[in-house]
Formats: sequence, structure tokens, C-alpha cells
Amino acid sequence: MRLLAALSGEPLDRPPIWLMRQAGRYLPEYRELRSRHRFEEAMQTPDLAAEITLQPLRRFPLDGAIVFADIMTPVPAMGVDVVFDPGPRLDPLTMARVADLPDPDMARLAHVGEVIGRVKANLDREAAVIGFAGAPVTVLAYLLEGGGSQHFPVFRSAIHRHDPATALSRLASSTHRYLQAQVKAGADVIQLFDTWAGLLDAEQFETWALPSARQALSGIGVPTIYFAPGGAHLLELLPGVGATAYGVDWRLPLDVAWNRIGPDHPIQGNLDPSVLLAGPKEAGRAATELLDRVRGRPGHVFNLGHGVLPGTPVESVAAVVESVIEHAHRRSDEKAGIG
Amino acid sequence: MRLLAALSGEPLDRPPIWLMRQAGRYLPEYRELRSRHRFEEAMQTPDLAAEITLQPLRRFPLDGAIVFADIMTPVPAMGVDVVFDPGPRLDPLTMARVADLPDPDMARLAHVGEVIGRVKANLDREAAVIGFAGAPVTVLAYLLEGGGSQHFPVFRSAIHRHDPATALSRLASSTHRYLQAQVKAGADVIQLFDTWAGLLDAEQFETWALPSARQALSGIGVPTIYFAPGGAHLLELLPGVGATAYGVDWRLPLDVAWNRIGPDHPIQGNLDPSVLLAGPKEAGRAATELLDRVRGRPGHVFNLGHGVLPGTPVESVAAVVESVIEHAHRRSDEKAGIG
Repeated sequence: MRLLAALSGEPLDRPPIWLMRQAGRYLPEYRELRSRHRFEEAMQTPDLAAEITLQPLRRFPLDGAIVFADIMTPVPAMGVDVVFDPGPRLDPLTMARVADLPDPDMARLAHVGEVIGRVKANLDREAAVIGFAGAPVTVLAYLLEGGGSQHFPVFRSAIHRHDPATALSRLASSTHRYLQAQVKAGADVIQLFDTWAGLLDAEQFETWALPSARQALSGIGVPTIYFAPGGAHLLELLPGVGATAYGVDWRLPLDVAWNRIGPDHPIQGNLDPSVLLAGPKEAGRAATELLDRVRGRPGHVFNLGHGVLPGTPVESVAAVVESVIEHAHRRSDEKAGIG
Repeated sequence: MRLLAALSGEPLDRPPIWLMRQAGRYLPEYRELRSRHRFEEAMQTPDLAAEITLQPLRRFPLDGAIVFADIMTPVPAMGVDVVFDPGPRLDPLTMARVADLPDPDMARLAHVGEVIGRVKANLDREAAVIGFAGAPVTVLAYLLEGGGSQHFPVFRSAIHRHDPATALSRLASSTHRYLQAQVKAGADVIQLFDTWAGLLDAEQFETWALPSARQALSGIGVPTIYFAPGGAHLLELLPGVGATAYGVDWRLPLDVAWNRIGPDHPIQGNLDPSVLLAGPKEAGRAATELLDRVRGRPGHVFNLGHGVLPGTPVESVAAVVESVIEHAHRRSDEKAGIG
């Protein structure tokens, strides 16, 4: 599989491509399905979640299918009620309460494994199935804050007041179990989303986020990708997570970010998702510029620097995917002296 | 004045201290005043805005008084209606419309000069009056988006589609006039807030944000501070703005950020505002740690790495200010062999 080959650093005629939030609101067939089913129902019903996971692969020759689920999916299985609207909302927990959470009831998460099985059974060509989870710090942020927030003041002040080590270790252990179940069900690759780690300062990251992410991923048995958007101040620290590869957002040129992380690690990214909103011409051109910049360096997984934004034209996604494939042809044409 | 001395790089027994959003919701006297006056009324009535500006200086021995106004204050004077609730909201503009905006009607901004005059007349001790404006890119972001936003998709896609140079130059020219009026009214220092520049990639920043911020500040006649939070990827580029000093957020240790910007520029920051939420003990200790790290290096202006967060205990602000003053005494005691 092309994605696995890139994650093991093999030279390839073109990088693999998949896009964060490739399944979702920008697709009319997703909106049609969602007009008939609530977000939670869509996630928890294996047939629906598998269908949503596969929708973008029917349209585009993507190299990965990421399971349709949420960062907070495992939390209700730990006895904490979460409402998705579609962002998660819950009654905020204390740090002590998080430290005391039980392991997830894996029976209540069986649907995620079923989604993976159905996706694998229905893929009509080679593509990696990508399982995922939220990193412990990011899940802790939601649990303490009670949902999303611009500044996460409750979470950020709590870690100044209470040692979060026990709570994070608890979440890391639960996350590890959840990821293990996804691997057992057939996930080829695991991505760990640390969406809010970029709010931490470098020392907090190193002390809390890094070891808990490492614990969640350690020994998981398939290649792993760790992604902390807004983390330009953390790049040099990332290898401590022990992932196979690291995702980077659009803020730094890919080669600059790559060198800061360390050139030996594969890297995933980093097209600015807002260029897709500008239209297919702009999106295709920007994708080509990114490929020109990377110059075929082995270990690159083509992706956006953040999830597909709502309102993105389907044609822009098509243009990006075509650019990646087209660019490979151009390069091989050039090598063959045709160009 | 201590703030001016630090901005000219003079060695001092302690750094000057002021805090972004030091006037605001966390102060009971502010909330009391606001219970009687709407946000817009409080900003536009010189007596009220001067009173709010001075409230934190009555409580704490701060070295700066920042005018109570909003980044979007000059926009209605350019003929664009803005509602503050308290974040700005407006009917989104096109890039072409922004490029065509008139200069601000300075008569409609006269109240800001009056606030500065009243603050200076009523300061009972030496403190710098800090005028401010939003940087062109940040004002453009609000104008195109129609208000605040997590991802600013409209703004970010617009600058991929339309060259923003004319619009930014227009805003830079208006901002310059507005800042000039503040200097004329007696502002001792100017801060330019580039709140959303950190959403741009490094190349966009260098091409659009930097020259427009430079144009806004150029030749303003008093020391200037440029602040782009979330800008860890931009630090090396900041000197191109041509400000006297640069503010930095809490994400990197102050000395690391300082060295990336260049050690010859004074620096402002960078206590994590969330530590103040944790309580006065935590806040005081963190302030002391920051001072220990800086070790009296000339050119440091003590501040937070972002504005005071709502819900911050007044006692935490007191503890931070006391730590800065106490630390200076400790240092001079140590020098005198008393400690």
C-alpha cells in the first residue's frame, strides 16, 4: 500500500494522498445522508459510518480511508455522557474525576471495529484504512472544559494547579486500548490527533503531552502519525512522541518543518485548507507548488495542514488529488525525456 | 518613564510591567460601570473610557495605561457599521470594497484623543500612556469575515484569490492616521495588535502582514510594540516590521523567543495568562520564574503572553505585579549582600 510504503520511507513515483476530514460536510452525498440521520446515529451505526468513510474514496483515488468517528467517541464508553452538535459538549469533569475514569467498555466501542471491517470489505481497490483517536491532552482539554473553546481557560488553568500526570496516564491507557481494538479490526495506520496541544507551552508539552501521547501509541503494532496543529513551537520536540511520522500544519513550508522535526521521520502535510475554498484553480496550483517544493523526497504523505473546511468545493478536492497524480506523471515523463 | 527606558534598552532595577486587557471584565469596578453603560457607550464616552483605562492603575503600580478602545474602533469612522457584543460583528466586505474605503473621519475618532488627554491629566504618578490599533491584516480579517472566527475561512481564502495589497495599504494608511492622532493626543507608546497574523503561513506573513504593519507604524514618532500571538513560526521575520519591540505569547520560553527575533530588540511578554486563573500563589510563582529566566536582561517589558482572561482573580494580578516589584528588591538586596 502506497501509504504504508511512504511511512516506511520508500521512494515512490508520487506521495500517497488522503485529506483530514475528507469524509464530511463538503460532500453532497454526506449532507444527503445526514439529512436523514443525526451525527451520533451516523457515527454509531456501522453501515452508515462505513458508507460515510467510503464516500470520498468513491469520488477520488485517495490512498487512505479514515474511519468516520470523533475524537470523543471513546468517552461515553468510559461512563461520561457526551452530546455532539456536532462539536462535543459535556458536563465538565474535575482532574480527580478524570484520574478515576474506568477503562472504556469495549463492547460499547465495538461499532468502530465493525466500521473498519465493513470499509475493508467494501474497498474496491488498494487503500489504507486509518484508525484514529484523540491524544490524551486533547481529550483532557475537552473533559475539563466541557467542550470546545477558543482559549480553553479551565483546562489550561487546571494543569497549573493540579498535576495532570495520573489523569493523562489514565486517558493514555484508555486510548491505547481503543487504538488496539482498531488495529485488531484491521486498521493499517493509526493517527493520533492532538488538536489542542499547541495551546501548551513547550515545557508543558514536553512534560505532559509528549509522554502521554507516547504511552497511547507505544507498541500499537502498525505505523502511527501524530498531529499537533498550531505546534510550530513544538516541532523539535515531536520525535519524543515515538510515532512513525508527524503531521504538520500549513504555517511553515513543509521542508522547513521537516528539518526542524528531523529529516529521518516521514512527514504528513501540509496544504493550507483555505486555498481549497478559493477554488479548484488555486487549489491545484498550490498542490503543485507543494510537490515542487518537496521534490519527491521519500517519506512524504500528501495531506492538508488541517481538516477540509466546511464550504470547500468538491472540485477543489478533485483538483488537489489530480495535481498529485498528474505531478507524478510529469515527473516520470521528465525522467523519460518526454516532458 | 520606566516603560520608555526599557524600550530604549536601558538597564533597570526591574522591568516595567503592564498587562494586556488589564482594564476589563475581571475588575469588579469595571463590571459595575458596565452594568450601567453598554460596551460601545463606555468606549465612546471619554469620561467613561478614561475611568476604565485608569481603574487598574488605581489598584496596581503598573507602568503603563492602555487606552480603553477596540481594534475595530476606527472602522465605523471609515463608514462601516460595526456592532460590539463585545466582539465585533459587521456585514462582511469584499476585498474590492476594503480597497476603496475612505480615510477615517477623524472627527468621529476625536473621543480617543480625549481619553488619552483625560488619562494623562488624571494619572497621579508616572506611567506611560499606551495607544493602540489593530494591524492591517487583523482588521482585514474581521472586515472580510464579518467578525471573529476560529479559522477565518473567508479571509484566508480571499487572500488566495485576490491580491490584498491595495486593501492592506488602504488600511495601513488609515491605521497610521489613527495612530498619529493618538500620538498627537499624548500617547507615549503605541502597540500594534496583529491578533490573527498567526493564521497566515510564513510566506503570506512576509508578503502581506509585514509590509502593511510596517507602513502603519513607520515614522509614528514614539516607541512601538508589535504583537502577533500564535506566531512562533514568524519570530525570525518580525524585525522586518520595524517596530521598536516585539511582544511574544507564552508558547516559547522568553529567552528562546527573544533569540529567534534577535537579541537587539526589546521584547514584551510572556506569562501564560491561564496561570493567573489558577490563583495568586501559582501566578506569583510563575512570574518569579519568568524573571529568574530573564535575569535582568535589559529591554524586557513584563507582560502576559495574551490578554487577561475573563474570570481571572484580582488577587492573581496583584500577585504578579508584586512579584515583579519584589523580585527587583530581592535582586538589589542580593547585590547589596543583604539577601
